[in-house]
Amino acid sequence: MITSNIIAGKSVKGSGQTFVGHNPSTLLPIDGDFEIASQENVEQAVSAAKEAFNTYKNTSGVKKAELLRTIAAEIEALGDQLIQRAMQESGLPEGRFKGERGRTIGQLKMFADLVEEGSWVDAVIDTAIPDRKPLPRVDIRNMMQALGPVVIFGASNFPLAFSTAGGDTASALAAGCPVIVKAHPSHPGTNALVSEAIATALEKCGLPAGVYSTLYDNGHTIGGALVQHPDITAVGFTGSEAGGKALMDLAAKRENPIPVYAEMGSTNPVFILPEKLNAEVDKLPAQIAFSVNMGVGQFCTNPGLLFVQENENLEQFTSNLEKEFSGLGSFTMLNDGIYKNYVSKRENALQTEGVTTVQASGTSTNTLKAPPAIAKISYQQFMENTNLHEEIFGPFTLMVVCQNKTEMLNLAHTLKGQLTSTFMGTDSDLESNTDLIDVVSQKVGRIVFNGVPTGVEVGHAMHHGGPFPASSNGRYTSVGTGAIKRFARPIAWQNCPNTLLPDALKEGNPLNIWRKVNGELTRS
Amino acid sequence: MITSNIIAGKSVKGSGQTFVGHNPSTLLPIDGDFEIASQENVEQAVSAAKEAFNTYKNTSGVKKAELLRTIAAEIEALGDQLIQRAMQESGLPEGRFKGERGRTIGQLKMFADLVEEGSWVDAVIDTAIPDRKPLPRVDIRNMMQALGPVVIFGASNFPLAFSTAGGDTASALAAGCPVIVKAHPSHPGTNALVSEAIATALEKCGLPAGVYSTLYDNGHTIGGALVQHPDITAVGFTGSEAGGKALMDLAAKRENPIPVYAEMGSTNPVFILPEKLNAEVDKLPAQIAFSVNMGVGQFCTNPGLLFVQENENLEQFTSNLEKEFSGLGSFTMLNDGIYKNYVSKRENALQTEGVTTVQASGTSTNTLKAPPAIAKISYQQFMENTNLHEEIFGPFTLMVVCQNKTEMLNLAHTLKGQLTSTFMGTDSDLESNTDLIDVVSQKVGRIVFNGVPTGVEVGHAMHHGGPFPASSNGRYTSVGTGAIKRFARPIAWQNCPNTLLPDALKEGNPLNIWRKVNGELTRS
Repeated sequence: MITSNIIAGKSVKGSGQTFVGHNPSTLLPIDGDFEIASQENVEQAVSAAKEAFNTYKNTSGVKKAELLRTIAAEIEALGDQLIQRAMQESGLPEGRFKGERGRTIGQLKMFADLVEEGSWVDAVIDTAIPDRKPLPRVDIRNMMQALGPVVIFGASNFPLAFSTAGGDTASALAAGCPVIVKAHPSHPGTNALVSEAIATALEKCGLPAGVYSTLYDNGHTIGGALVQHPDITAVGFTGSEAGGKALMDLAAKRENPIPVYAEMGSTNPVFILPEKLNAEVDKLPAQIAFSVNMGVGQFCTNPGLLFVQENENLEQFTSNLEKEFSGLGSFTMLNDGIYKNYVSKRENALQTEGVTTVQASGTSTNTLKAPPAIAKISYQQFMENTNLHEEIFGPFTLMVVCQNKTEMLNLAHTLKGQLTSTFMGTDSDLESNTDLIDVVSQKVGRIVFNGVPTGVEVGHAMHHGGPFPASSNGRYTSVGTGAIKRFARPIAWQNCPNTLLPDALKEGNPLNIWRKVNGELTRS
Repeated sequence: MITSNIIAGKSVKGSGQTFVGHNPSTLLPIDGDFEIASQENVEQAVSAAKEAFNTYKNTSGVKKAELLRTIAAEIEALGDQLIQRAMQESGLPEGRFKGERGRTIGQLKMFADLVEEGSWVDAVIDTAIPDRKPLPRVDIRNMMQALGPVVIFGASNFPLAFSTAGGDTASALAAGCPVIVKAHPSHPGTNALVSEAIATALEKCGLPAGVYSTLYDNGHTIGGALVQHPDITAVGFTGSEAGGKALMDLAAKRENPIPVYAEMGSTNPVFILPEKLNAEVDKLPAQIAFSVNMGVGQFCTNPGLLFVQENENLEQFTSNLEKEFSGLGSFTMLNDGIYKNYVSKRENALQTEGVTTVQASGTSTNTLKAPPAIAKISYQQFMENTNLHEEIFGPFTLMVVCQNKTEMLNLAHTLKGQLTSTFMGTDSDLESNTDLIDVVSQKVGRIVFNGVPTGVEVGHAMHHGGPFPASSNGRYTSVGTGAIKRFARPIAWQNCPNTLLPDALKEGNPLNIWRKVNGELTRS
């Protein structure tokens, strides 16, 4: 059976070429061909999205909420079929997908609540002051409005929560932007199921089918064409630094440059402070090992660097880490490319001069099972080997041993932009390292105390995005309600008759939202 | 006398090369040499800014407000000397600079009020839910914090309000970013005076001198070096599309790309709807002529295109425009480059096939006085000559005559991104053109009804920035309190001890600001 691209609710003929999904656990192809999109499909999808935008941008928050909740219900209705397909295509276990489906549905409902309530548009009203001297003040009203058609790239490491109907799509749809999903070639079948759910939801809600399309390609041609299309207004991406940077460059070279929101990952350094290490020499290693191997290390917040100081308990700490890591299983990675990259980067790191292996399981042939590893290196040699400062995507972490706090501070200064950094410290550790925390806060999007960076909470306060190269633009988050701001821009209405204003800006506040009126937040 | 670059409050030796300012009214050089900065000066200024950032980013809102108000007072204290120098260097009249100084001081005080009140940081708090199932929720707190050292380019057309201590500098200082101003070579003396005021204010407030530096260059070398410096985190610019795009490209090619907030101008089309034209055939022409010639047409919101429909009163309307334009005086432009550009672009436009001159004063020799002009063209010929769709910076406007509403709608669809667009219409005109208004709203940052686009109100609701090429990033405004958001990014604090949190995020809300706590806005 050939699955074709879905454009505005219809299965549309593509290039004629196809590809198949693979099961990373068995290394065998999975039944079902997926048709690679054509350049014509790109035109069709963008044109449908542009047309749909005329209606969808002015769709009420209540109606958009209905859509998002209907998509959630349709995904739920896919039942076990979706879980099984995602497992087959990713090698990840059932429990993980039940959790990830819950998160995906939760995100859709969270954005539904957000746009139904409506205050996210940041309505600001400065009323007229006709008798102001020397010049009268005119009435100006401002609110966020949807950008236009956007392209979302599915992420391999979250086939549900950061792919077809994941956080990027949910936030773009919530903002009022039609979405074209470039399916990730590692999970085309999962994409097809979720895409059907979205198309069905649009139909059930009586909204234009062009609000959603999905295109397949196992190369970069279709993604590149979408990003360069003049009518595309923004791009969402989760993946590698190389992939994200390539999209940023394409977007910057357009005749009309557009924003690319690329979440590209980082090494998420963990600073383990001396007192805490002493106090929890038996407890921390298990916590760290668990976090490093979670999701087979395939999380953007995976702790890839551990910064410690020389200490009477360091040997015991290291030996406990060794024990914990030797107890970890090897699990199947998402695809062949990720596995090969992991094995080769891990090997390079372990072979780098100065690096001592603490614990590293061996690789096995004919599987994509990633052997976890932990190694250590001195501060001095870490500083000399900048290749070790880069992310190794998988269950690997490197412990860097400093002689003193000054060296730890130097490490903090050399850090590039990070999604997260973590401090493991007692109250007194933290109090005596406020300078270190201050330096680190300038390099990260989120700073974690006495916890692990994996497990990104989806909420209002989350910030998932750090200075480049952690993400393309550290001012935006890809997780949590704040993510909607990526897909909207303020528009000001000056001296506009009340009947022509968007409801959010009308006299009498008919939507009952929070608005800043003459500088004061009010709901009246 | 040689005026040198000011780095962290000190006059510092530069390249040894100098340039002088010119009086555009007399075409004569103005007394006083300005030393072009060296590459070493770039390093010195950035290094001082980086050092100062360590203190300044954690400076309280109250203290930053004191700084901004002290700068305002120091500028005021410069008295007539500042007005005279700005007049000499710009050719603009005294009244204009008294007004512009008022605006500059007003902006500084507005940002002082904003950061003193403190809610601008958008504090968001999701408290812990230890017994949540299946996993506990951890405490996360999020707020906007300053980006780091930034570069601001002085704008030629607002030597006070969008230059040295203008809106860009005021908003960056308010956010907590040290500022390096690349002085505009058209008003180096004005820059020197205002820079001294800023340096004095920093000293009076006991804040690090490195928070402010200014460098001179009459070419592009120093500006380019600043934008490419790895420790610079953002750029503010107001000027031409070519200039802004060059900075965007430099910033995108950096190893760590940074945001460039370039406000580049637009044609600001005015749609004059049929009933309104009939009703105000005698009144509108004066209003339009005044707006076109305001500031010698050197405003980014200057109405460069007038869209009208064929109509029994159009001849009368055109003849009234002719009369109004023939009554306008020719005034001195800001500098030789702007004048030459205006004269040549105006000439090209008037000579384009299909363009009929309605009224155009002749150019005079040996002055930089810009003769205002108005011309007209048919819809058909306008569509065929895309060069006429570009901005002509100066007192020129082109009337495009449509046969019907469909043609007007087509014009709207072909528009590139604009700062503003204006509708002149009766209530019934507007009601019958909601489709047109809807299309136009997608192309602009601000949509004006029955007023002129010039005269940009500085307030909370203003949005001054439109889709590219009007600005580099239509999601940000360069005018009004919203401008501060360009220079900050959210940082999330997870499970952080209360004592280590920034005050804005602490328990008990010690700053008494608006915060979103568990999804609800509250001040308690």
